[in-house]
Amino acid sequence: MKLGIIGGGQLGRMLALAAYPLGIDVRTLEPSPDAPAGRLTEQIIAAYDDRQALAAFAAGLDLVTYEFENVPVQSAAFLAERLPVHPGPRALEVAQDRLHEKTFFRSLNIPTPGFAPVASPAELRRAVADLGLPAVLKTRRLGYDGKGQYVIARAADLDAAWEALGGVPLILEEHVDFSRELSILAARSTGGEIALYPLVENHHRGGILRLSLAPAPDRDGALNRQAESLARRVLEELGYAGLLAIELFERDGVLLANEMAPRVHNSGHWTIEGAETSQFEQHLRAITGLPLGATTARGLSAMVNLIGTLPPIEPILALPGAHLHLYQKAPRPGRKLGHITLRAADTRKLQQTVLAIAQLVPELPARSLI
Amino acid sequence: MKLGIIGGGQLGRMLALAAYPLGIDVRTLEPSPDAPAGRLTEQIIAAYDDRQALAAFAAGLDLVTYEFENVPVQSAAFLAERLPVHPGPRALEVAQDRLHEKTFFRSLNIPTPGFAPVASPAELRRAVADLGLPAVLKTRRLGYDGKGQYVIARAADLDAAWEALGGVPLILEEHVDFSRELSILAARSTGGEIALYPLVENHHRGGILRLSLAPAPDRDGALNRQAESLARRVLEELGYAGLLAIELFERDGVLLANEMAPRVHNSGHWTIEGAETSQFEQHLRAITGLPLGATTARGLSAMVNLIGTLPPIEPILALPGAHLHLYQKAPRPGRKLGHITLRAADTRKLQQTVLAIAQLVPELPARSLI
Repeated sequence: MKLGIIGGGQLGRMLALAAYPLGIDVRTLEPSPDAPAGRLTEQIIAAYDDRQALAAFAAGLDLVTYEFENVPVQSAAFLAERLPVHPGPRALEVAQDRLHEKTFFRSLNIPTPGFAPVASPAELRRAVADLGLPAVLKTRRLGYDGKGQYVIARAADLDAAWEALGGVPLILEEHVDFSRELSILAARSTGGEIALYPLVENHHRGGILRLSLAPAPDRDGALNRQAESLARRVLEELGYAGLLAIELFERDGVLLANEMAPRVHNSGHWTIEGAETSQFEQHLRAITGLPLGATTARGLSAMVNLIGTLPPIEPILALPGAHLHLYQKAPRPGRKLGHITLRAADTRKLQQTVLAIAQLVPELPARSLI
Repeated sequence: MKLGIIGGGQLGRMLALAAYPLGIDVRTLEPSPDAPAGRLTEQIIAAYDDRQALAAFAAGLDLVTYEFENVPVQSAAFLAERLPVHPGPRALEVAQDRLHEKTFFRSLNIPTPGFAPVASPAELRRAVADLGLPAVLKTRRLGYDGKGQYVIARAADLDAAWEALGGVPLILEEHVDFSRELSILAARSTGGEIALYPLVENHHRGGILRLSLAPAPDRDGALNRQAESLARRVLEELGYAGLLAIELFERDGVLLANEMAPRVHNSGHWTIEGAETSQFEQHLRAITGLPLGATTARGLSAMVNLIGTLPPIEPILALPGAHLHLYQKAPRPGRKLGHITLRAADTRKLQQTVLAIAQLVPELPARSLI
C-alpha cells in the first residue's frame, strides 16, 4: 500500500515513521525541499494547489491523508475525485474556519466559549458589548500557534485590534477564565470503530504548546465522560475517519470546546512511548480500515516541546525515561524543532524529571506543576 | 549527523527508523535494489566489496555501522581508514568464525559447548571420538538460521556430513542437551558505559527463531548474574561500541555461550515496545557516544517472527497489545518477512494472546509455553 501525505513537516515525518512498520510506503507533497518528512519519504516538491503536481502526487497512491488542516479544500476535492482522502472534506471545512467550528460544536450541544462573527468595526463593537472584555479577536482562518490573534483587554484596544487583523473575516471570542487547558485525542476508523485516548493537560506559553501531561492529572469520572461524549458526537457527525484532536478549556468542572484539528496533534506526541498505540499508528489504522489499537496509557508521560533552539542533547538522554524526537529543522524563534517525552511510573518521579529538564529547556512552565 | 549502515535488510530498516528521531540521517550500502531499508534511506546499490561504491558510500558520512556480521573484513578496514566504524573490526573477526568465537569465549572463562576444529575426514573422526554423538558439524563461516549445519546422530552419518559440508573449514560442536535457549542483549558506548537488557528466552524451529519471550520466565538471580558477567567480559575485552547479542544454552543452571552477533539481533526486537529503550536506539546511542538508555522491561513481551508467508493482518491487529512490523520483503519459504510483538501486563494474559496468535501464524511453538 502506498499512502500520500499532504505536508512534509514533523507530523508527516512521524506518520511516515509509523507507516513503514505497517508495510505502508509514503509519498509526501510539500513545497519545502528540506522538509522533515522528505528525508525518509518520496517527496514531491510543489505548492499544495499546483494541479499538475497534485496529479503526479496522486498517481499510484492508494490513499491520501494530510498533516495540517489548512490544505486548500479545492486540492482535497481534486484528489478525492481520484482516490480516497481521509479525513473527509467536511472535517477540513469545519476546522478551517473558527466560526464554522464553534457553530458546529454548538449544533452538537457541545459547550464553547461565547463567540460572534466580526466583519466590520461596528460588528466588533457590538460583539464586545455582547461578550464583554477581555475578549480575543481572531482571524477565522489560517491561525495557529497564537498567530492571527489579538487580546482586547479594554475598550481602548478596539481600534488597534481592528487595525491589526481587520480586512479578513474575524471572530470575537469570549476570554475564558479557565482552570486549565485539556485535549482529547479520538480516532474513528472507516469501519466506524471508535477509540479514545485519556485526557491530556496542556500548558502553553506565547501561544505555543510547551508541555503536555498525559494522562491529565486530577481528572474525575465526570470530566472523562464529558470529553468522551463530545468527542464521539464530533466523530459520528462528521462520519470521520482518522485521528482527531479537540482542544478544551476546563471551567468550573465543565469542558468548553475551543478548537479541533482533523489530524494527528502535538498534544498526542506522548502516545509514541506513553500509550499502547501511538496516535500516528492509530491514524493509519483508522484511515486504512484496520482494527484500532488500544489507547491505554503506559505509566505517566510528560511531553516537552523544543522551541526555537535545541538544548544540549546529552544531559537530556541521560535522564531516566527520556525519549528524544528531533525534526531536523533549522532553528528559528518560535519554531518547533523537536520534542521530548518523559515517562515515569508515578507522579513524583515524573515531576522530578520535568524539573530536571526545565534546567535545560527554556520557557518550560514546569514550576506550575508543583 | 549522517550514519552509514552496511546492509539494508530489516535490521538496517529498524535502525533507520530509530535514527531519524535522534536527528540522524541514514545512507545504506546494499546490493538488492528493493531492500527493506531502501524505502526510507538513501541507498547505494552495490556489492559489499566494491571499492568504488565503498568510497562513494563513505563520502559525507560521520560514522559507519552494519546490520550483519558477515561484512567483508577488508571492506570494514577500508572504511575504518576513512571514518569511525562501530563495532570495531575485532568483533567482526571473532564473530565471523565459529572456531574463533568459541575460542574467544573460552579465553574469557565463559563456558561453551565442547568443540573441535575439523579440516579433514580424519579430524572429523577424532573430534567425534572426543565429543561423542550426537554432535553438530558446522561451517566455521557464513552460517545463519541453521544453514551450513549437519547433525551427526550416529557414526554412520559421518561420511554424509563430510560430503555435505567438507571442503571449507569446519567445526564440530557438542550437541548440548539444553533445557532452553536464551540470549542477552548488551550495549557498550564509545565512552565505556555498559547497559544490559534482561535475559530473553528463544524458541526455534527448523533452525529459525520463531518466538522470544522477554524478560525470560523463571530466571533466578544466579542465571542473571552469569549472563551479565559474561556479557560484560565480552564487551570489555573487545573494547566494544554498539549493541551485541550473545546466544546462550541453559544446562543444569549453567549458561553456555553458543554464539555472538556484533549487531542488533532478532531476539531483541521485543525491545521496540517492550523495553524503555529499543535495541536499535541503544545501538545508535552507543556508537555515537550518547548516554545509554534504560533497559528496563515494560511489562511482558512475546516476539513472534513471521516466516515465509504473511498471516492475515486484521485479526492480528485486533489482538490487545499486538504491534506489527512488516519488512516489505517478497514472500519466500524460510524468509523473515516481519514480526509481531505482543505485550501484556501478566503471564496469563500474554499466554492467551500467544495462543490466539498461534491460530494465525503457522509453526509457532506456542503450546510449548504452557
